Amino acid sequence: MTALINDRLLRALRREPVDVTPVWLMRQAGRYLPEYRATRSRAGDFMSLCQSPQLALEVTMQPLERFALDAAILFSDILTVPDAMGLGLYFEEGEGPRFRQPVTTPAAIEALPIPDAERDLGYVMDAVRLIRRELAGRVPLIGFSGSPWTLATYMVEGQSSRDFRTIKRMLLDQPEALELLLDKLTLAVTDYLNGQIAAGVQAVQIFDTWGGTLTTGWYERFSLRPMARIVAGLNPAPDGSRVPVILFTKQGGLWLERIAATGCDALGLDWTVDIGEARARVGDRVALQGNLDPVVLYASPAAIRHEVGDILARYGAGNGHVFNLGHGIHPQIEPDHVAALVDAVHELSLPYHRVQG
Amino acid sequence: MTALINDRLLRALRREPVDVTPVWLMRQAGRYLPEYRATRSRAGDFMSLCQSPQLALEVTMQPLERFALDAAILFSDILTVPDAMGLGLYFEEGEGPRFRQPVTTPAAIEALPIPDAERDLGYVMDAVRLIRRELAGRVPLIGFSGSPWTLATYMVEGQSSRDFRTIKRMLLDQPEALELLLDKLTLAVTDYLNGQIAAGVQAVQIFDTWGGTLTTGWYERFSLRPMARIVAGLNPAPDGSRVPVILFTKQGGLWLERIAATGCDALGLDWTVDIGEARARVGDRVALQGNLDPVVLYASPAAIRHEVGDILARYGAGNGHVFNLGHGIHPQIEPDHVAALVDAVHELSLPYHRVQG
Repeated sequence: MTALINDRLLRALRREPVDVTPVWLMRQAGRYLPEYRATRSRAGDFMSLCQSPQLALEVTMQPLERFALDAAILFSDILTVPDAMGLGLYFEEGEGPRFRQPVTTPAAIEALPIPDAERDLGYVMDAVRLIRRELAGRVPLIGFSGSPWTLATYMVEGQSSRDFRTIKRMLLDQPEALELLLDKLTLAVTDYLNGQIAAGVQAVQIFDTWGGTLTTGWYERFSLRPMARIVAGLNPAPDGSRVPVILFTKQGGLWLERIAATGCDALGLDWTVDIGEARARVGDRVALQGNLDPVVLYASPAAIRHEVGDILARYGAGNGHVFNLGHGIHPQIEPDHVAALVDAVHELSLPYHRVQG
Repeated sequence: MTALINDRLLRALRREPVDVTPVWLMRQAGRYLPEYRATRSRAGDFMSLCQSPQLALEVTMQPLERFALDAAILFSDILTVPDAMGLGLYFEEGEGPRFRQPVTTPAAIEALPIPDAERDLGYVMDAVRLIRRELAGRVPLIGFSGSPWTLATYMVEGQSSRDFRTIKRMLLDQPEALELLLDKLTLAVTDYLNGQIAAGVQAVQIFDTWGGTLTTGWYERFSLRPMARIVAGLNPAPDGSRVPVILFTKQGGLWLERIAATGCDALGLDWTVDIGEARARVGDRVALQGNLDPVVLYASPAAIRHEVGDILARYGAGNGHVFNLGHGIHPQIEPDHVAALVDAVHELSLPYHRVQG
């Protein structure tokens, strides 16, 4: 494979010196871009977009044509793995993801197959190969998966939930069933991410969108432990190098020390955490990614620039910072505001890297 | 006024010895009780229920007839203050609170009057006086208000919000307007709580439901600082004693040290925080209230009892714990499950207080 031209992201994830702070954005390929909406409407429904490697390539590349981003992220959905387990993922317009066959009984969990990445999720692996070829070393490609807990919430609730009452009831009244589901998902996600690595992704992120809704004890047992097992089970890249892993638990600010202890390379931070305080807590062990409130992108470009500067200043000088939002870009955001953000990161971070060796 | 027969709550808030851990529950008077639903349907709409001192008395007393709770809490809504400022609070069935006149411009904020508790919110003060008389010292009565930030979110957004994009845009692009709104609300809430204290409430809680959606820096400036000013502005009770103040920021677990530094008497904890870790962080300065996940009440009584025991054990022996949920009771909960919770707190906490006094 081609050598990387822009390797800022991988250097920052390894806490090595960089010229400026690298930046990518969760949901950087998405509905806020008119060209995404055009591809999406050509594809028909959202799943057809995910399942076409050619269209996934197309939307993955779109934000890189507009903005000076330092990474591409595979365009896909976090729920492809449960879909490959036979749950029948579909999207109701304006309603979010749903499953035709939610998993609500121990027997249904017992019966769940563990998908094979190449055989059952080949469309994702094909997309990774196409994107790597198209990128030609311009920036690294990030792969991803949902965390076992986060996938399990959708599988048991059947859809998004406000309070997770069905899965938490399973946690309390049938904990062995939930453990079995999480064990299966841990194996499936490990295989899925290893498939992505074999196909060419150069870093991976695990999205633990709903771990932050748990008590501390439950988080450790039902969300963090499965993620730690995945981190331990990941293969090196085909060239033998380590593939850095970013763990992102939304609303996980209480647990940064525990997350850093999993052996991951970086923590994704939501916007509520002060990134300077996070660095003081764990920055000698991991890189930190984040953490602009996505709602800041509704404000004026001047305000966006000010908030970017504030986060860079709070992180301070030195290595180990990857700039990102604290959650995904909203569909209503103006692309010009995203450009203001990306440019501000590169311009305003220069002084924090000047003294690097 | 009559002496208190059950003073466990006030003793725990002052971190004095008690025989068993006191317990009350956020939304203990509410839709999960059939007798509440009966009163509510007699009242017509929700605002009529809040605005009738006689009906507010009735629903305030209902949970005390069923459960061995250690406190009553005034039945009211957090949005009575903005309603008294002229915004026109109403409730769309199944939609949550709405304002007829949201406040979206600096001019509208300038024009907002600061209500006088006795004159403009007399129905609340009358309810407090009725409830105190009816309680006759059986348990203490807790008064409450929303925090300035939380009230401001509804006033600016006009209703509940998922991402607070309107008020955060004001925060970024018109911070002086937001500061003025928060200043007015700080004065109004201080006067409102002092009115409740004069009328007879024996402790107060400030509900900061939405402070946890802010960045750390914004939380300090726009939510915590106004709350600290309110704490400093509260009057003693008519008998000259200090009225303890509980600050409850949902999703505020990152900021416990900062909240404890306001001079409040107790912190309300949501369920994500480990209460033992919270005690290690701030328990030499404040009492702690919480923190069972309200979703636990959907599980079996045996599981509820187990989770109650777990929280009591994490808090450990000694003073300063008030048991509560980490957020309000859901309307679908079985009253029997609430009874299981209340009884478990009293039974299982006995060993943790045995060595006292």
